[in-house]
Amino acid sequence: MDLISRIDQAVREAVSLGQTSPAPAKLAAALEYATTPGGARIRPTILLSVALACGDDRPKVSNAAAAALELMHCASLVHDDLPCFDDADVRRGKPSVHRAFSEPLAVLAGDSLIMMAFEILARAAREDAMRSAALVLTLARQSGMPGGICAGQGWESEANIDMRAYHRSKTGALFVAATQMGAIAAGQDPEPWAELGDRIGEAFQVADDLRDAMLDEATLGKPAGQDDRHGRPNAVAELGLEGATARYHDILSGAIASIPSCPGEAMLAQMVNMQARRVTPAPTASRA
Amino acid sequence: MDLISRIDQAVREAVSLGQTSPAPAKLAAALEYATTPGGARIRPTILLSVALACGDDRPKVSNAAAAALELMHCASLVHDDLPCFDDADVRRGKPSVHRAFSEPLAVLAGDSLIMMAFEILARAAREDAMRSAALVLTLARQSGMPGGICAGQGWESEANIDMRAYHRSKTGALFVAATQMGAIAAGQDPEPWAELGDRIGEAFQVADDLRDAMLDEATLGKPAGQDDRHGRPNAVAELGLEGATARYHDILSGAIASIPSCPGEAMLAQMVNMQARRVTPAPTASRA
Repeated sequence: MDLISRIDQAVREAVSLGQTSPAPAKLAAALEYATTPGGARIRPTILLSVALACGDDRPKVSNAAAAALELMHCASLVHDDLPCFDDADVRRGKPSVHRAFSEPLAVLAGDSLIMMAFEILARAAREDAMRSAALVLTLARQSGMPGGICAGQGWESEANIDMRAYHRSKTGALFVAATQMGAIAAGQDPEPWAELGDRIGEAFQVADDLRDAMLDEATLGKPAGQDDRHGRPNAVAELGLEGATARYHDILSGAIASIPSCPGEAMLAQMVNMQARRVTPAPTASRA
Repeated sequence: MDLISRIDQAVREAVSLGQTSPAPAKLAAALEYATTPGGARIRPTILLSVALACGDDRPKVSNAAAAALELMHCASLVHDDLPCFDDADVRRGKPSVHRAFSEPLAVLAGDSLIMMAFEILARAAREDAMRSAALVLTLARQSGMPGGICAGQGWESEANIDMRAYHRSKTGALFVAATQMGAIAAGQDPEPWAELGDRIGEAFQVADDLRDAMLDEATLGKPAGQDDRHGRPNAVAELGLEGATARYHDILSGAIASIPSCPGEAMLAQMVNMQARRVTPAPTASRA
């Protein structure tokens, strides 16, 4: 089975846990709506790629980790789109959850997806309790305070932003979670894998800035020019299009160089390059 | 150390994890604001009482469980108070989190407290990985979909409410979490403890309905008459004051009768009675 099918199946199984009767029907529908059809599933693809590169000796644990990470990412999108944050009408080419359902159901759908992510990881304790606990710890830390995606959003309420902490937590955190959880799921020490996640996150942030500056809403599947509109710091404003593009390629090279020695090292380098091509806008991709 | 001090210390230690530098200062402050000063800490008190009744052989695990449950409860209060739900200005006698900080910070504070609850449980794996995983599983299920507090709130968006599922998930779920997590923390099978949690939850729901109908905002520490205002189903509307009071005492007797046989059975019955007196309004308490 290819990685995307493996991820989609794991996510579908997880979401179906929340839909057993009796369940409030609209909230159950919102959970499915928020998780399907999948976006690029970049984070769980990285996670499974790292797990495979490390031997993937407990595929059920890796699947649980991939589903949990994707559910957490979907939860963050649902909450980020709320009127009090981005007030986004569109996400992944369809109405955002609060537009399609309601604001209360969007808050609850985000919360429920977070709970579900941890439930899935806890169920993996049947396979390996130590790995399950390490996965919960890593996902919780990279999602919460002071270094996770909640902290990243939290920086936007500060008058003085620690830019390094902001980017690392807002975008980098779930990529660090991806590489570290992949290693943990395969029984490896997560520490040497932090740098790869960190650098992929940095590259992704710059690519996102390039996309936001260069593409229109139809291509993005969400409103364009949001960074400028909200006065958010971004690499294009700082370095210009040329500079930001050059920086993107530098960071990617660094990412590939940081891959720890493991059986699947070459395959992993290829995957990072492939994901990189998917997230860069056309004019930039043609240079790659 | 008395139970409340034990709980407050565990909560304080947990929240301080989210405040190590660098952290966005307002969100860090919102986490402390949302968790102090504590309310009655009823759920973690029940949790520790059950753990003690079962021998409490791993106090660090019990403390982690108590802190995690209280953080989850605080998170639910912060989100329930949001403008799109209760739009409450006041909680525990001071401005609600979105009033004191902002709506974005209230959403993020709730999310961060949820992550922190699971982080604390994962850290307890150092003491016992199997108990840690079972605690994560129980807390996630009693908080999420389809049977946890998210589901409970979700029912309020339905045209046809399954009243039994609504009350069990909205109010009962975290009391079931309390008794079951107390048993798990002490190495016991959680299943026989579900009924006690269920019945305490039912009693608490009726007591809350009585308080909402009988007391004013100053005494409640939050707006009064919310059930009537929002047209929410409640025991007083259904049975009248007399009937609801009688039902409250019936449920409590059932709760005490359901306590599984364990070394601390008598002490636990006493604790349930004591908590019951704390949550009933004066005219009802005088009959007890």
